[in-house]
Amino acid sequence: TQQLLSGRGPRPRPFRVTIADRSVKKGIMADGLEDLLNKVSDSLNVPCVSALVLDEDGTGVDTEEFFQTVPENAVLMVLDKGQKWTPHPNSPPRNQL
Amino acid sequence: TQQLLSGRGPRPRPFRVTIADRSVKKGIMADGLEDLLNKVSDSLNVPCVSALVLDEDGTGVDTEEFFQTVPENAVLMVLDKGQKWTPHPNSPPRNQL
Repeated sequence: TQQLLSGRGPRPRPFRVTIADRSVKKGIMADGLEDLLNKVSDSLNVPCVSALVLDEDGTGVDTEEFFQTVPENAVLMVLDKGQKWTPHPNSPPRNQL
Repeated sequence: TQQLLSGRGPRPRPFRVTIADRSVKKGIMADGLEDLLNKVSDSLNVPCVSALVLDEDGTGVDTEEFFQTVPENAVLMVLDKGQKWTPHPNSPPRNQL
């Protein structure tokens, strides 16, 4: 079910975007990285976006190419200027998975 | 199982909608976000709906576009003014699933 990437390109895909403290998460449709960043800035009230990362491990999503490989409904975190990704407070250390 | 998107558009689809304390859950047919919100407000007695979120992780469903990607029979939570989504009390931390 991670292989739903056949619709690459202009078709908007759903993502779940949260903010640094994970207090809010919103479903957002975007057809590309720039589109997502524009929508995120408005709907999550992040005035000065510094980075978009994968919520699961903090991987930075900097390029359109990589963004297009992120699966639908992946959880992304948008960071405002000065903010950093932190692990989930209740997740075990990764080596114990 | 995320591929139930063929029925987009005006055809009503079934959803399961609960309220903030999860004491009630109802099956509701809706052809769109606005339709669902109208029906929910009545049938679940939520006078002042502030948000509709995915019950599984609290993702806000704010746009018609994203709503159309929510699979049939997904559990949604409707929040009244001042209410917040909370995780399921008996669910394990996400990385231990």
